[in-house]
Amino acid sequence: MPADSSGINPRFSKKTNRRPDPDTLIQGILQGDITALSRGITFIESNLKEDEPGKHRIIHELLPHSGKSLRIGITGIPGAGKSTLIEALGLELIEQGHKVAVLAVDPSSQLSKGSILGDKTRMEQLSRHPNAYIRPTPSAGTMGGVARHTREAMLLCEAAGFDIILVETVGVGQSETAVHSMTDLFLLLAIPGAGDELQGIKRGIMEMADLIFINKADLFPEKVRLTQQQLENALHLFPPHASGQPVHVLTGSALQQATVAELCRNLLQHAAAIQETGFFESQRNEQAVWWFKETLDQEILKRFYQQNKYSQLVYDLRQQVAQGRLDPFQAADKVMKEWK
Amino acid sequence: MPADSSGINPRFSKKTNRRPDPDTLIQGILQGDITALSRGITFIESNLKEDEPGKHRIIHELLPHSGKSLRIGITGIPGAGKSTLIEALGLELIEQGHKVAVLAVDPSSQLSKGSILGDKTRMEQLSRHPNAYIRPTPSAGTMGGVARHTREAMLLCEAAGFDIILVETVGVGQSETAVHSMTDLFLLLAIPGAGDELQGIKRGIMEMADLIFINKADLFPEKVRLTQQQLENALHLFPPHASGQPVHVLTGSALQQATVAELCRNLLQHAAAIQETGFFESQRNEQAVWWFKETLDQEILKRFYQQNKYSQLVYDLRQQVAQGRLDPFQAADKVMKEWK
Repeated sequence: MPADSSGINPRFSKKTNRRPDPDTLIQGILQGDITALSRGITFIESNLKEDEPGKHRIIHELLPHSGKSLRIGITGIPGAGKSTLIEALGLELIEQGHKVAVLAVDPSSQLSKGSILGDKTRMEQLSRHPNAYIRPTPSAGTMGGVARHTREAMLLCEAAGFDIILVETVGVGQSETAVHSMTDLFLLLAIPGAGDELQGIKRGIMEMADLIFINKADLFPEKVRLTQQQLENALHLFPPHASGQPVHVLTGSALQQATVAELCRNLLQHAAAIQETGFFESQRNEQAVWWFKETLDQEILKRFYQQNKYSQLVYDLRQQVAQGRLDPFQAADKVMKEWK
Repeated sequence: MPADSSGINPRFSKKTNRRPDPDTLIQGILQGDITALSRGITFIESNLKEDEPGKHRIIHELLPHSGKSLRIGITGIPGAGKSTLIEALGLELIEQGHKVAVLAVDPSSQLSKGSILGDKTRMEQLSRHPNAYIRPTPSAGTMGGVARHTREAMLLCEAAGFDIILVETVGVGQSETAVHSMTDLFLLLAIPGAGDELQGIKRGIMEMADLIFINKADLFPEKVRLTQQQLENALHLFPPHASGQPVHVLTGSALQQATVAELCRNLLQHAAAIQETGFFESQRNEQAVWWFKETLDQEILKRFYQQNKYSQLVYDLRQQVAQGRLDPFQAADKVMKEWK
């Protein structure tokens, strides 16, 4: 390949219109080349039919090199300061010798477009660090599609040598479930404030959390203790976490290095604990099987409903059911009788 | 038909081996005949292929006569005193002129067998009342199957003139969702007791509740206020109920008539409120469509996975996914390529 005066390795140059070669991408990713990683993730997100074999090849070859990271899901109510905390946490982890990748699951951000720039601007220090990699939300449509792309991007990051993956989610109910199904630990960010302010915590999220961090404790010192107590009380109402580990409620601030370091210590201790009990590995296996079953179920149903023959029938029956003219079970029976 | 010396209408006699005639059952149910109702529900629960047309006929004919009741789901932690409260609540409602049917969704009770006798023994007074009808848990297998039978039994009870349907569930997570999807109101029973005792309340159930009743307040007077406060605090952590109505936490005892009457008043007021806002009707329509979609999805997947061709393939791929040798998404793609 000819040399390029720009200094950028021409094999990975974004200027070229040639489709990237999967083997070249695989090699680059395994060498930790960030440009190859970015192009690889973009390739994986492609919806072009012709890219299918290449996508399969990339995942297949990199799979044995993936999985050796700690995957942390991070969610929080709007205004909890997720970006600032992720930057502080990322820098702290890098300080300790880790390589940190930040991914996002956020199907809604495609509407606001600017999120790529937004994320990188807000995490300015982290995004410039050679041991960090920030990948914005994939631009694809459905939740299932976005989650799939994020999970596959995670594999590529791991193959490129990143040993901590932070997966951010904006707090849409659906996306937490997806992130929870691809991470080892789940961190919930809250802010101090009694009653109403806590209502933003969505159903089921508190029960997923392995750790809760009350951020901005410096701004509202008088409310911190009450909020902590409320969250601890609420946690007591639910059965113990599946991991068998206690769920701690920490307080601090993304702007106070000592509290970020303590959060970091807690996360790593928690990870060590579940590795020791075997929960870490069994959870990973369960997650993989869950994604297989979930994806397959969705694909089967999608293909069924897309067939014109059924889509009109289902639509008609649905109308009758909604109007109370047909029993829902009998409507389902009718469709099943039509199928083969 | 010949007269019968036992005095029981021979058309509905359980002694006969003849399959009941659907039209005779339909007529009997519409006249409010309890024996016809019981036989009709048993008929609906039949798994015999030859009964299919008759089942469809019964549901089809009775559907226009159903739906005119208030459907109340009742759940609670073990030991909350569900049976005693349901009996007291049922008698109170009958006192006010209602006709009350009690159904159950409890797929696990088939294991303990004795639940039919148990329910009727525990609700002795209610079961003997001419304006009450207690139907034990259907004996069928899966959660989906049991829920379907319960929902259809509900339609038959409504057609027979029962205007309040109480649907009891034992507190398995899955069954609450099913009951929530077939009732207008959801009542959660708790008992006084701090911390540990409350942990029996399962994920998501608190958010479904329209009303919480702390039963046995007379037995643990010193703990009642604290429990009430804890539950109210926990409720504040979640977004407002979909109905837009406030969720009240009442205290009382199934053995204290005044508190049962207050609970009754609250339930009926709540029902009136959601009828006025239109939530009652929109929820019913949504529920019907939900059952249609849910049943159809499950049936489609069941038929797919039952095909030998796919079941072996899915099993093999699942193993590879669990062992981390194959990406879950690619495994799903492999199955989809095999399908047609």
